[in-house]
This record gives sequence, structure tokens and C-alpha cells, in this order.
Amino acid sequence: MVRLDEVRAGEVLAAPPAADDAGLAFIGRIRTPWVSRLETPRLGRPDGPECTLEIFEPWRPALRGIEAYARIEVLFWMHLSRRDLVIQSPANDGRGHGTFALRSPARPNPIGTTIATLVRVEPERLIVRGLDCIDGTPLLDLKPERSLFTPIAPEQPGDRQTFRP
Amino acid sequence: MVRLDEVRAGEVLAAPPAADDAGLAFIGRIRTPWVSRLETPRLGRPDGPECTLEIFEPWRPALRGIEAYARIEVLFWMHLSRRDLVIQSPANDGRGHGTFALRSPARPNPIGTTIATLVRVEPERLIVRGLDCIDGTPLLDLKPERSLFTPIAPEQPGDRQTFRP
Repeated sequence: MVRLDEVRAGEVLAAPPAADDAGLAFIGRIRTPWVSRLETPRLGRPDGPECTLEIFEPWRPALRGIEAYARIEVLFWMHLSRRDLVIQSPANDGRGHGTFALRSPARPNPIGTTIATLVRVEPERLIVRGLDCIDGTPLLDLKPERSLFTPIAPEQPGDRQTFRP
Repeated sequence: MVRLDEVRAGEVLAAPPAADDAGLAFIGRIRTPWVSRLETPRLGRPDGPECTLEIFEPWRPALRGIEAYARIEVLFWMHLSRRDLVIQSPANDGRGHGTFALRSPARPNPIGTTIATLVRVEPERLIVRGLDCIDGTPLLDLKPERSLFTPIAPEQPGDRQTFRP
């Protein structure tokens, strides 16, 4: 069973972070078929059910041109997650794994990232597949999937910098 | 030239977001060779120069097990970015693109994501390649790259759910 809020054998906690270094604005809300953490998929799948990314004003016009991309990187705020786990035991078997060696939702900054397949663009929402978050999750950002995107800005010196002498 | 803070022809701004829906805790600091936005690469490259992800306490033990992953997803806070651009003109040619159809650093929640190649793990830092952020950028999160990670938690009902009847 996924974590609700319990602490398990072998886990290590920190003091909850103050979380005042920077602030987030929710830009939308995600609608998925999963209303409980006990049924939400652990990882999204490209043939998963359709989900909706509802975009709030004033950000709807920022979707202009997104229809050109078959895959979108979706960043969301996993609002139900605890933020104080340093070592976690996802299998609840006493074995501890570092939080940064897991894609568990419990992390100091519970930002989820998924690559979603774009099904359809509407003026106020996107229909996608491939998500793995609970219904009602706040939306933080959308970007074209890395490998599909070519920068439009002019070249910068760092673009060509490599480790080879 | 990349954006410093100017507004360009064809761009559309919103009121700066209140950014008080949720709070972030910086978990570390990124060291790169690029000290100006005018030289930072637009996109990271796997053969790019070595960079350092310095991890703050109490999160250093959360690196346990990360050495198993050749590629790490790095989330960072692009602290120099403006957050009010809805339509942007990366080429400064009067043509406007929606913020969510770009990977520009200027976005309502300026969270950058990169896939970094792991070079070496030390107790307080990771050495990586493939970054595309300015020196001193605050670090938000590290996760195993999606395609390399198999969940450790037991299966959930949503794992097998598809759109096919």
C-alpha cells in the first residue's frame, strides 16, 4: 500500500522544512480518475486514461502553440505528501532508500513531473494521457517535452561548451 | 541575446502572480561554469562540462542509493526569471509564443528541469554533466530519471488502468 501519512520501520525524518525560500502560484488544477492515494498509479503510462489539465486565468493564452508538441512535461504540486522523510521504505520492509533515489511523492519539495501525451487542446484546458497524480492536484507548469523542443532564442556561448579540451 | 529583464515587442504580461499557494525549501545550490545569463546554454548537453550539486543538511543522507542511476532528473529554481510573461518573443522578432509552448526560464513558476548524467557521488554533493543553469541556482529536488526507475512500492490499481475498454 502507498503511504498515507504513517512513518515506517527503517525510515528517517528531518524537521519539516520551513519552505519559505520561494513561493508558488498554482496555474491550474488536474482532473484524473483517481480520487484516493490507494488507487493512483505509481507511474503514468502513455496508454493511460484521459485526464484534464484545467488552466486558470490569466495563463490560458500562454497555451498558444502548445498543440505543436505531441508530448508535454507536466509539473504539479503533490499537496498531500509529507515533506520530512530523508530515508523511506516504499515496500514497508524495513529497507531504507534515500528520498532522492526514489520518485516517491514524499520529498522536501513535493513537485511531481510527468511526460504526458497530448490528446487535445481547448481554450481553457488540455486533454492528456500518461498522468499519475490524484484528482484535484494543483498544476505548476507545462513545457514542451525536452527532446521535441528546439530553442527559438539565438545561440549562446554555453550551447557549444563541452568537457572535451 | 537571452532575456535579461526587458519586455519585447509582441509580448503579453500578466500581473505578477501572488505566489503564495505553496512554499519551497531550497535543498542545495548548483555550481556551473556560467556566471551570466548571456552565456548559459539554452539546453544542457550530455557531454557538457562538469557541474556540482551541493546538498544542504538535513538532506545529504537522502542521496543514499542514487549512485545506481546513470541519469538524474534535476529540479531547480530559476531565481533570476521574471514570472509575468504570458506571450514571449525569444527571438525578439515580434513573433509571440505562449509561455507553456516554450522552455524559456521566464514562467509563472520558474522551475527548471534537466536530465543530468551522473559522474560521481560524494557525501555532500553530486558531480554531473548536462546542466543548463547559471552558477548559484537554488536546487529543489533530485529524482532518478523516469525511464531508469522501477517503483519499489507495491502495485496499485491505477497501474494497470488504460483507456482501452
